[in-house]
Amino acid sequence: MFESAELGHSIDKATYASEVPLLREGLLAAQSALLENKKFPVIVLIGGVDGAGKGETVNLLNEWLDPRHVVTHAMAAPTDEERERPRFWRFWRALPPKGKTGIFFGSWYTAPILDRAYGEIGGRVLDQRMEEIVRFERMLTDEGALLLKFWFHLSKSDQRKRLKSLAKDPPTRWRVTDDDWRHFDLYDDFRKISARCLRHTSTANAPWVVVEGANARYRSLTVGRAILSALRARLEQPPPTVHAPAMPRPAGERLVLSAVEQRSVERAEYKERLGKLQRRLNLLSRSKRFRNRSALAIFEGMDASGKGGAIRRVTQALDARIYRIIPFAAPTEEERAQPYLWRFWRHLPRTGQLAIFDRSWYGRVLVERVEKFCSPADWTRAYAEINDFEEQMARHGVVLAKFWLQVSADEQLRRFEERQRISYKNFKITDEDWRNREKWPDYELAVADMIDRTSTDTAPWTLVPANDKSFARLRVLETLCDRLEG
Amino acid sequence: MFESAELGHSIDKATYASEVPLLREGLLAAQSALLENKKFPVIVLIGGVDGAGKGETVNLLNEWLDPRHVVTHAMAAPTDEERERPRFWRFWRALPPKGKTGIFFGSWYTAPILDRAYGEIGGRVLDQRMEEIVRFERMLTDEGALLLKFWFHLSKSDQRKRLKSLAKDPPTRWRVTDDDWRHFDLYDDFRKISARCLRHTSTANAPWVVVEGANARYRSLTVGRAILSALRARLEQPPPTVHAPAMPRPAGERLVLSAVEQRSVERAEYKERLGKLQRRLNLLSRSKRFRNRSALAIFEGMDASGKGGAIRRVTQALDARIYRIIPFAAPTEEERAQPYLWRFWRHLPRTGQLAIFDRSWYGRVLVERVEKFCSPADWTRAYAEINDFEEQMARHGVVLAKFWLQVSADEQLRRFEERQRISYKNFKITDEDWRNREKWPDYELAVADMIDRTSTDTAPWTLVPANDKSFARLRVLETLCDRLEG
Repeated sequence: MFESAELGHSIDKATYASEVPLLREGLLAAQSALLENKKFPVIVLIGGVDGAGKGETVNLLNEWLDPRHVVTHAMAAPTDEERERPRFWRFWRALPPKGKTGIFFGSWYTAPILDRAYGEIGGRVLDQRMEEIVRFERMLTDEGALLLKFWFHLSKSDQRKRLKSLAKDPPTRWRVTDDDWRHFDLYDDFRKISARCLRHTSTANAPWVVVEGANARYRSLTVGRAILSALRARLEQPPPTVHAPAMPRPAGERLVLSAVEQRSVERAEYKERLGKLQRRLNLLSRSKRFRNRSALAIFEGMDASGKGGAIRRVTQALDARIYRIIPFAAPTEEERAQPYLWRFWRHLPRTGQLAIFDRSWYGRVLVERVEKFCSPADWTRAYAEINDFEEQMARHGVVLAKFWLQVSADEQLRRFEERQRISYKNFKITDEDWRNREKWPDYELAVADMIDRTSTDTAPWTLVPANDKSFARLRVLETLCDRLEG
Repeated sequence: MFESAELGHSIDKATYASEVPLLREGLLAAQSALLENKKFPVIVLIGGVDGAGKGETVNLLNEWLDPRHVVTHAMAAPTDEERERPRFWRFWRALPPKGKTGIFFGSWYTAPILDRAYGEIGGRVLDQRMEEIVRFERMLTDEGALLLKFWFHLSKSDQRKRLKSLAKDPPTRWRVTDDDWRHFDLYDDFRKISARCLRHTSTANAPWVVVEGANARYRSLTVGRAILSALRARLEQPPPTVHAPAMPRPAGERLVLSAVEQRSVERAEYKERLGKLQRRLNLLSRSKRFRNRSALAIFEGMDASGKGGAIRRVTQALDARIYRIIPFAAPTEEERAQPYLWRFWRHLPRTGQLAIFDRSWYGRVLVERVEKFCSPADWTRAYAEINDFEEQMARHGVVLAKFWLQVSADEQLRRFEERQRISYKNFKITDEDWRNREKWPDYELAVADMIDRTSTDTAPWTLVPANDKSFARLRVLETLCDRLEG
């Protein structure tokens, strides 16, 4: 992995002086084209050993590029708001929008590598973390991001020399910390661990560039050139069109939804059980256990399937200070400039909070698929991306409950007509609802695929028979209680 | 203040039962109209003594309203991200967008009242905090917000009774905390302090409604009715058109800008002083002192006045990890749904960080005034709002440097022509620049007013002679260093 980065590369002063002006001009022009077309973001990761010139390179990039459109993230210790969310939350919130450049100095690689070096995690967990990263980066590049990863390397003797020379010189002494020397003692471990990480994560869509760090001119030109050529290539040609793999479907027409058996409940029984379940939920929400974790309930279902009513029965049981309902309709301008999961990440609840999503990231494989708002390649890859997202929540201890409220086509029709008849329900029905109804079979297929592909052990779907609203509400409350207890 | 809230108001069961359905229907209809027209947000503050039913009322409102468009903020202890910004930052970030409702349970009143009751601040500071609040709320309502403030009151004997009865009952026992009893011991102080606060902050645009809290039906109906009638009134008629006060102007035509004497510097001297100043800035940015505060530098000036170049000379001296440049152009959709200062608040730097704003909130009194993007009433009130904003930063210890880069009309013309002539500078000049140039006299007037009205002791303007770019850059660097040292 690092062999060719220990050969003592260097570039002489004259070559450097003659190339830099052209490089800078090229970078500025490319950056301005990037800003103009606003089609993709540039994400630059800077990692590697201490003393190999990472900081200098970040500063230099800010000098060479138009710094108004570059944001540098020095990812130090997470804030408390960050610690209360799944691990990747802090990176999601820092992603640059399309047209801009984000430099991550310290990235999603830092913690796993340090944790392994200090023995806090074993090799298997490290591999798992790298797998997570591969999938995260795959999502970023599939969403169009240009992801450039630079690893700054120094041989052991070069690192020792470099740290010593920095420490000797008064104006640079501050830069060598105790941590740096502590890391140096672990040089061999670090080297082995990072080689393993780099090997696992050097993918076709996001390969590592290992940069020998000893010679400043060499490393600067290497990084500058690499960014320029990648940026130019990406601006000149769109990313290769990805063909969606054919979606194999089990034989037979019986869809999972037709297997949902509708149920109903008597008025008196409903009232009694509702009261009991709401009390149970209330107690659970006030338990010590809940105060130390967060929960997320998402509601999906055809129009008029009773999502709103079911949500209200949940919130009635709760203190308004601990829940938040987030209804998702069309994304905003800022959201459209980010990967599609971004707008869901940004609303993940803090510890001690329940977030209720009225519609969710499953829009990607439902409405966006059916209405062709995204390409087949986009929604087919979404299943895996969604599973990763939910996996991350589960690892953080977020309780996730996913409800599909299942009404029959006849029942939907009855509700639509009722909404039109009753004046104060009128605002609830629009032409769009009728248009969606015409696509019922398409939606049914999409839902069947969604359930098949995203009902997992950690995040199972609950298919709620919803022709009878009372029954549906009880089922939702009961399931949510079970999930919170489980 | 509280006399009429100790009369033992109550509402009987029958009246309540008959009125609630109508009230709920009315609230839902009004809320849906609010969502439809998206013209203003509703901000509900819930304050008052413990045990007076604040929590129950918040829960009830969430039940009566469509909870998908209500967000409740229980403002407990600030997070570390919040503590690192001026006091109001956490409220700004929680403001509901137009069309939505935000309920603040615990609000900007909580900390000052508690601080005073526990003797951490004196009466004079309390008054000052209330003045701050009055101006903040004035800004909110001027920006169109419907602000409804409810104070829940209990007489001392009622409060004792209420706390005792809550503490006796197992299902409600958890709700009475040690804090509640501690507060009870201070009842008389609290009463006096809150009366004073309410008196100071009960303004025409945001009056307090004091609600007697002992009877649940009474307090619920009172709050419900008050919200409904205020919401209806506001939906039916636009807020009264505010006439902009005439702007008194000192006699004589000599504008502050024409008094700026252009200066220049020789190449050799420039190089030497630039190096020295950048070193000085670098050292300052690494000082212990800087690590414990944050800084904000804003750059304003006519097109081609050299803002970008000056900014680069600043950032060259800094580690890319500690600064962030935020260029402000047209606001995004999410920003347009908020008061105009919101998009600047959201980018305030954390501790140890320097934010550089390329254009700023002064756009309100410059481009928005000249291009008539806002009404004269809007930009005339902006001066005071801006001064308040900057005052809050100063109180938090944010170092603020404000630069106006002053070029003459002739020099601008020369630069425009140069930009058109030189191919790689071409992207920097647009038709809009030429159009803006035609409005030079309007801009000059706007700048003069801006300087007159917003150059304060805590946040003075630095008028930078900028016909000579080198001189301007040195002046900027020097001033920034002085501010950081000062």
